[in-house]
Amino acid sequence: MEQVSESRSFGGRLTVHRHRSGKTNCEMTFAVYLPPAAKKGPVPCLWFLSGLTCTHENAMTKAGAQAHAARHGLALVFPDTSPRGEGVANDEAYDLGQGAGFYLDASEAPWSQHFAMASYLTDELADVLTGNFPIDSARMGVTGHSMGGHGALVLAMKNPDLFRSLSAFAPIAHPTKSDWGRKQFAAYLGTDESAWAAHDATLLLRERGWARDVLIDQGLNDEFLDLLRPDAFAAALVETRTAHVFRAQEGYDHSYNFIASFMEDHVRWHADRL
Amino acid sequence: MEQVSESRSFGGRLTVHRHRSGKTNCEMTFAVYLPPAAKKGPVPCLWFLSGLTCTHENAMTKAGAQAHAARHGLALVFPDTSPRGEGVANDEAYDLGQGAGFYLDASEAPWSQHFAMASYLTDELADVLTGNFPIDSARMGVTGHSMGGHGALVLAMKNPDLFRSLSAFAPIAHPTKSDWGRKQFAAYLGTDESAWAAHDATLLLRERGWARDVLIDQGLNDEFLDLLRPDAFAAALVETRTAHVFRAQEGYDHSYNFIASFMEDHVRWHADRL
Repeated sequence: MEQVSESRSFGGRLTVHRHRSGKTNCEMTFAVYLPPAAKKGPVPCLWFLSGLTCTHENAMTKAGAQAHAARHGLALVFPDTSPRGEGVANDEAYDLGQGAGFYLDASEAPWSQHFAMASYLTDELADVLTGNFPIDSARMGVTGHSMGGHGALVLAMKNPDLFRSLSAFAPIAHPTKSDWGRKQFAAYLGTDESAWAAHDATLLLRERGWARDVLIDQGLNDEFLDLLRPDAFAAALVETRTAHVFRAQEGYDHSYNFIASFMEDHVRWHADRL
Repeated sequence: MEQVSESRSFGGRLTVHRHRSGKTNCEMTFAVYLPPAAKKGPVPCLWFLSGLTCTHENAMTKAGAQAHAARHGLALVFPDTSPRGEGVANDEAYDLGQGAGFYLDASEAPWSQHFAMASYLTDELADVLTGNFPIDSARMGVTGHSMGGHGALVLAMKNPDLFRSLSAFAPIAHPTKSDWGRKQFAAYLGTDESAWAAHDATLLLRERGWARDVLIDQGLNDEFLDLLRPDAFAAALVETRTAHVFRAQEGYDHSYNFIASFMEDHVRWHADRL
């Protein structure tokens, strides 16, 4: 594993790493923030999964999470949103291919060769983190924004032993009924829609449930409300009697200004539970 | 004046504006953050001047100042670092021309036609701010990073009635003795070095002084220490018996990770004084 950069941040260390992944069959990049408390021993870790078009870099630069993580003694990890590189399949659209991995394992050509973000994150990167950093494998939580909120919800419900705490910012919450989902699932998973339900947070919550609690923030001025379908997930949370806090935030849009404004609450949510 | 964008942020409003400047003879862009307190009446305002290669956007996206400004009831303004556009002189180097205005009024061709950042900021943008936003003209402070730290120090010392509080992050502190300064001053001001002293914070402090106090943060792992010359400015602060806090921060580099880590202290510094 190669260290690409290192920078002091809020008394801790923000580093970027590149490594060969056996799951995505290519080089993957991720960033890690270690708080000052990590000098004394393993700390809990919050994963932040980013949205469409993002890399490992957007959230580490713009979300303002490091300040709060330093205070709460929480590590942060910022994975990339897809496999990348010359040999990796891609599409001209911003919402398919590189930058748009949707945190699932593709079964269809040409995507299946590299697009295995679900198993990359949960089977490989999780081990890389606990093997190379003072991060406690038993105390990991996950959050994310938009496509990354979808990833957080789905991956946590499927891996409750790995992710012990959960929140999301404006998640793509019902992708089987959205243009942010149907097009990608058809490409990555095939046109048989029965394979899609396992990747839809609203359907998955109804089927598997989530035994802990979850925090969702959603801006009411979000320009993508119709694609995100927070209403469907909110209804499923109530129907399934899942412990939760769903906050519809007056005036906020889909940008990092929204994320940064509520990041402190999300970091505290995870720190309290890890 | 055209509003380019608007986004809710920490309960306030982050907006970007474009206007025709009579000082730079071109369209100029800047961002303003209004805290929640601005709904009730005029608030004090902190200017953030950015470094080489930056636009109005870098600091508003990466410095994390809005969270603290919201809490302290301070407006923020993020000006651009130079005039821009097709008809504006430029240079292939990153440190001359567009993105590298050095916050001065150029006297030499071809720069003198548009490069008038000092009078643009102090004679024009200051009026635009107080005329169009709930900002109190009697309560403005200035800070900045690198080239923007140079701008903050020099413009405050020259305009103590406009800028009532002052701080800087890793400022270019002695440009007449640095490759970040000599090349640009020769281009913008001509080769007669006697015209340069008025644009060098260390020399200006010795000549004019600063009647209030000043906060300087400087990372000790800054990759540009030799170009910034914080030592010269620190010595001048002591020699001139200027009230100040100069903090040499162990391990920090020149990046926005450094700025964000100490932004809370700078916003509080200005809020306490405005």
